[in-house]
Amino acid sequence: MQSKIPARQPFKNHDDTIVALATVQGVSALAVIRLSGEDAIKITQLAFTGKTLEEQPSHTIHFGAIKDGEKTIDEVLVSVFKEPNSFTHENAVEISCHGSPIIIKEIIKTLLKNGARLAQPGEFTKRAFLNGRFDLAQAEAVADLIHAETDNARQAALNQMRGGFSMEIKKLRQELIHFASLVELELDFGEEDVEFAKRDDLKKLVLKIQSHLQPLIQSFDQGNVIKNGVPTVIAGKPNAGKSTLLNTLLNEERAIVSHLPGTTRDSIEDEIILGGIAFRFIDTAGLRHTQDEVEALGIGRTREKMKQAALILYMFDLSQTNSTEIRQEEEELKLLGVPYIKVGNKIDKANRFILRSLENQNFVMISAAEKTNIQDLKDQILSHFHINKVKQGDVLVTNLRHYQNLIFTRDSLDRVLTGMDSGVTGDFLAMDIRQSLHYLGEITGEITTDDLLENIFSKFCIGK
Amino acid sequence: MQSKIPARQPFKNHDDTIVALATVQGVSALAVIRLSGEDAIKITQLAFTGKTLEEQPSHTIHFGAIKDGEKTIDEVLVSVFKEPNSFTHENAVEISCHGSPIIIKEIIKTLLKNGARLAQPGEFTKRAFLNGRFDLAQAEAVADLIHAETDNARQAALNQMRGGFSMEIKKLRQELIHFASLVELELDFGEEDVEFAKRDDLKKLVLKIQSHLQPLIQSFDQGNVIKNGVPTVIAGKPNAGKSTLLNTLLNEERAIVSHLPGTTRDSIEDEIILGGIAFRFIDTAGLRHTQDEVEALGIGRTREKMKQAALILYMFDLSQTNSTEIRQEEEELKLLGVPYIKVGNKIDKANRFILRSLENQNFVMISAAEKTNIQDLKDQILSHFHINKVKQGDVLVTNLRHYQNLIFTRDSLDRVLTGMDSGVTGDFLAMDIRQSLHYLGEITGEITTDDLLENIFSKFCIGK
Repeated sequence: MQSKIPARQPFKNHDDTIVALATVQGVSALAVIRLSGEDAIKITQLAFTGKTLEEQPSHTIHFGAIKDGEKTIDEVLVSVFKEPNSFTHENAVEISCHGSPIIIKEIIKTLLKNGARLAQPGEFTKRAFLNGRFDLAQAEAVADLIHAETDNARQAALNQMRGGFSMEIKKLRQELIHFASLVELELDFGEEDVEFAKRDDLKKLVLKIQSHLQPLIQSFDQGNVIKNGVPTVIAGKPNAGKSTLLNTLLNEERAIVSHLPGTTRDSIEDEIILGGIAFRFIDTAGLRHTQDEVEALGIGRTREKMKQAALILYMFDLSQTNSTEIRQEEEELKLLGVPYIKVGNKIDKANRFILRSLENQNFVMISAAEKTNIQDLKDQILSHFHINKVKQGDVLVTNLRHYQNLIFTRDSLDRVLTGMDSGVTGDFLAMDIRQSLHYLGEITGEITTDDLLENIFSKFCIGK
Repeated sequence: MQSKIPARQPFKNHDDTIVALATVQGVSALAVIRLSGEDAIKITQLAFTGKTLEEQPSHTIHFGAIKDGEKTIDEVLVSVFKEPNSFTHENAVEISCHGSPIIIKEIIKTLLKNGARLAQPGEFTKRAFLNGRFDLAQAEAVADLIHAETDNARQAALNQMRGGFSMEIKKLRQELIHFASLVELELDFGEEDVEFAKRDDLKKLVLKIQSHLQPLIQSFDQGNVIKNGVPTVIAGKPNAGKSTLLNTLLNEERAIVSHLPGTTRDSIEDEIILGGIAFRFIDTAGLRHTQDEVEALGIGRTREKMKQAALILYMFDLSQTNSTEIRQEEEELKLLGVPYIKVGNKIDKANRFILRSLENQNFVMISAAEKTNIQDLKDQILSHFHINKVKQGDVLVTNLRHYQNLIFTRDSLDRVLTGMDSGVTGDFLAMDIRQSLHYLGEITGEITTDDLLENIFSKFCIGK
């Protein structure tokens, strides 16, 4: 159970220089290509006609052209950053060119020819982490920040990037380390019955740490919804009005709405923000038996999506159905074990008998086409989730990896407590304490493995 | 026929400060928000915690946070450009933030609150033009540059942005202006029969200018294909293999390929570059009579697209058709008046009789599924267009507006020539010369109207 603490040398440059597009690929006024590494400035200079970049101070911008041999590719602005004063703590360059995919391609090709290599996903942030610019939880927050889809998610990521969460974890770990060293010291004395780490004090400390872990662990319920949003499937029989409801919710004509049943073949996704939560609404192919192969594929996908949803809006066409059918459909729905809301649609066309028969049965009665009672539906959707506005400084666990490690930490600390109660020897206690330290250390990256880093940074986008 | 020459005062600042996202909207490492105008730096400062930006030299970069009141939105780098040393010749700021749509939105919202206004499409480039940074043809080249889809298009736009084309036009116009002033001088002498502008010299000059105009006008055939690419429709009966051919050409599975006829409802577009030309291939719904309303809509669109195409690849399923049907289909095809290539598909499944009967009838015989003879087809497609590689310094007309004005110029100069031959009075000559000057002047923007500028810049993207 050796801690694998890697050699993290601040400001250590890596051997090679990496390059990638940092902005979204496409047509726009500007695009930014970034380089990082010992030779970032030299490699850019080889393609640059303008001032001698090496002689320029850090954080300055220079106009010139990027050339591939004799061919001018584009006129650009080059920003120079000198180590350690850059995002990666290495020499870095940002080339701001015209936002054309062909120009971007040609410039990157030239830089590769001049000695740069294409960056791996997340490699800029990984270098920033390895060079000591921030810890692992902060590095992960960079990715969360750019993927934030609500203001709550943005604020939670920014708080984490600025180290609020890391500080909390590091503080807990420091307290444990002190105790761990005392217990380890006991072991050095072997058979002698010394007790440097007073058991009562250790117990108090562990309980105190547990009491700090618990709110962090609990915050993940909120943090997960804030970071990942809520996948919400709109399901029901063909022509129940699913696409119409999606359109009404999105306030725009995204799905092809037609009076022909079976129009929606592919599932369509879009998001709306309700109460600071991103609900990803998924319109689906209507559930029915069909001979149409393409439609059948769509229906198969619908059932998959329903199983994976956090919430199902199940729609009934009240102008077409009866109580028996409704009961049958709800029985099938229950089997999935996914929270659902029963939406009675087309109340403007339904007869009063069916409307009366469904009273007090927890239906939300709407007309998607007439936009009737849509706010009621939104309120019902929101009532499944309780989210507070995230404020500057709030510490919130939003990352599944952190959550899991917090759970593992709690479990090994539980073992420390039960171990003490049952009077196990110091070496067992020491093992469980070390394990706790390991799990906490992995969160902030004081303990890492290549696999862990690979796993984290490979999910970043290229250029980040 | 007064020339409307607007007051173009270099380095004149506009009253207000504009802001827009300059990079593509989406999730990425970075996004750049740009501001331009007298108060660009002041307005940024109101939201910026970091150094005092006004005190910083031009072309420097500063780290800090963007805040909306007490709320920190993001940590950013701010680049400061001081007039006249910026793209627009005005004070300008570029804010490089994390590439998140919500961060972009929040930052722009804050800058608007602080006194900026949202830029119109092309307004940065329009200001650069109005402030004398470059002429109108050069400004238009900026848009062409970012929309360039081939290296030829990029090079043609860059050449134009660097003024090669403008210089040619301005030189021609200068020579005419000299003569125009002599002719106008004659008019001042009224009834006296003076001739400052020697008719023989004028004729020589006009002929010389015409001889310079002609290659420019002719270059548009190439320039248009280079700039706009070639819309190429893939058409034919259902199940002729259109989507399969598109996939084979694109070397990727873009269209849903299925063995069911009628799978492709919407038209699908994608591009491949052949011989330096962007061919925009348009897969279409199969042509047949149908009861399916959605499919019928698709077929209507197909016929529209065929009429607008520069080239049609018309596909025949040789395993299913016969000579009579083929003849009928070709008769209908001819009526469109659009160049077409007859593609005989599924030769691996066709019988030898039909293959023999189509010999020497200009069919390209392929199997899209087996990827047989695809290169032959590509060669056939290319043989419809002849494009030379565009080199640095080549002057090429790629812009329809320029082309039209060159034609108008040629026509009015033709009237000058025929006028001289038929001995019209000086005031008629003067009018036609002035008209030529007007048309040439509109190309480079020495003569503009608000409508003209509106028309040009409204087609730019926002942020450019």
